[in-house]
Amino acid sequence: MKAMMDRQEFEAALRQIGAERYHHLHPFQKLLQDGQLTKVQVQAWALNRYYYQSQIPVKDASILARLQTTALRRGWRQRIIDHDGQEASDGQPAQRGGIEKWIALADGVGLDRDYVESGEGILPATRFAVDAYVHFVREKSLLEAIASSLTELFSPTVIGIRSKGMLAHYDFISQETLAYFDKRPVQAKRDSDFALAYCLDNARRPEDQRAVMDALRFKCEVLWAQLDALYFSYVEPAMTPPDAWRPGIGMKADAP
Amino acid sequence: MKAMMDRQEFEAALRQIGAERYHHLHPFQKLLQDGQLTKVQVQAWALNRYYYQSQIPVKDASILARLQTTALRRGWRQRIIDHDGQEASDGQPAQRGGIEKWIALADGVGLDRDYVESGEGILPATRFAVDAYVHFVREKSLLEAIASSLTELFSPTVIGIRSKGMLAHYDFISQETLAYFDKRPVQAKRDSDFALAYCLDNARRPEDQRAVMDALRFKCEVLWAQLDALYFSYVEPAMTPPDAWRPGIGMKADAP
Repeated sequence: MKAMMDRQEFEAALRQIGAERYHHLHPFQKLLQDGQLTKVQVQAWALNRYYYQSQIPVKDASILARLQTTALRRGWRQRIIDHDGQEASDGQPAQRGGIEKWIALADGVGLDRDYVESGEGILPATRFAVDAYVHFVREKSLLEAIASSLTELFSPTVIGIRSKGMLAHYDFISQETLAYFDKRPVQAKRDSDFALAYCLDNARRPEDQRAVMDALRFKCEVLWAQLDALYFSYVEPAMTPPDAWRPGIGMKADAP
Repeated sequence: MKAMMDRQEFEAALRQIGAERYHHLHPFQKLLQDGQLTKVQVQAWALNRYYYQSQIPVKDASILARLQTTALRRGWRQRIIDHDGQEASDGQPAQRGGIEKWIALADGVGLDRDYVESGEGILPATRFAVDAYVHFVREKSLLEAIASSLTELFSPTVIGIRSKGMLAHYDFISQETLAYFDKRPVQAKRDSDFALAYCLDNARRPEDQRAVMDALRFKCEVLWAQLDALYFSYVEPAMTPPDAWRPGIGMKADAP
């Protein structure tokens, strides 16, 4: 039975999990940011990750539905607004949401919008991993559900490196294509500060702290497994499963 | 909008899905039955597949809980008895269940029982795929839940080929180690005849027939994704994810 960690030790332990398991360490991520992927492989990444993006507000709505105070709900609902965007009103311009921006990213690399939105052709392993995340958030304790979002602690640095690398190395990638990532570092810092404070405040027993750490490890596995599937289906040995997307399918009519 | 298939066409369409997508076509399965795997790779297979076996009665209990007639429940409960076994009573000897036999299989290749039962060290992708199956059965229609078991239509032949190949090629595999498979062809035929009759009788609209076919495709993906994960984590390029089982972990004290 391990003793309770103090606040500082606990935060350090959480950050250590990211240092060892976040998907910035995955070979696919390194190939992506170093310009070592083909356009087809980048398309496979954009297509599959769309499914992850599309389920983020679904899992956030599950958390929202379990929050018992106005302050917590106000904090969490912003995540849904960020991903779903909002229409123009009261003189405020419309805001494209993260999902719409991800579709623009997929469009930017030549994929057809309807095909991307349909979810056809994503790898079964992508669907299983993303759905495991949605189910985890519904079925585990609220503390664990919130803790599973803590991977955002580690995303701002990675986003910067990846966007810079992709812009430098791929002639089919423009700043506009990567617009999704422009606001994510600020949003991710705000959101992960909120979730981290919640976890530090509400993990009051050693077993709560362990549950928070396990939830963060689980989420790292969800992200890692998605890149595994891409690596092995499209990079090496490129054994694409039956029905999964193949080059040429789901292309925009005017794709170069 | 496709027309309704007659009973014979519909059954043929279901069998065609197995011919094209069942995991007997997966490279890992071929390596396994042709004696091309190392003992470590067979251990990884036994360990990971245990998790699948362990969840079969869980998913069958979900189906049982939704059946509305005695006849259907009697048919389905036998699956749970087969996997969980039963104690001796009324002069009848005890029956080892399929789960116990799978533990014996894992033991037979050198793995420690407690380690196998703990689920530690299984691949995240194994967990995600198996849990996707359990969730599918809970959340989809009863017809789709039952249809997802139809992969058993295709297992008897494969079991024979695999058991014969494993016995012939691996000196660490005995008939006793493979005892799990002795009764499975008969059980699988009985169970899949029952499930097939249910689907043929209850898919009364073209959209029901499509849902049944999609459920069977989904289940093929669940099986296929498990072998993908084994292939790529332990065969090539053997990029075992953080925390997953590695050679030497979870061995029996007296493992050779």
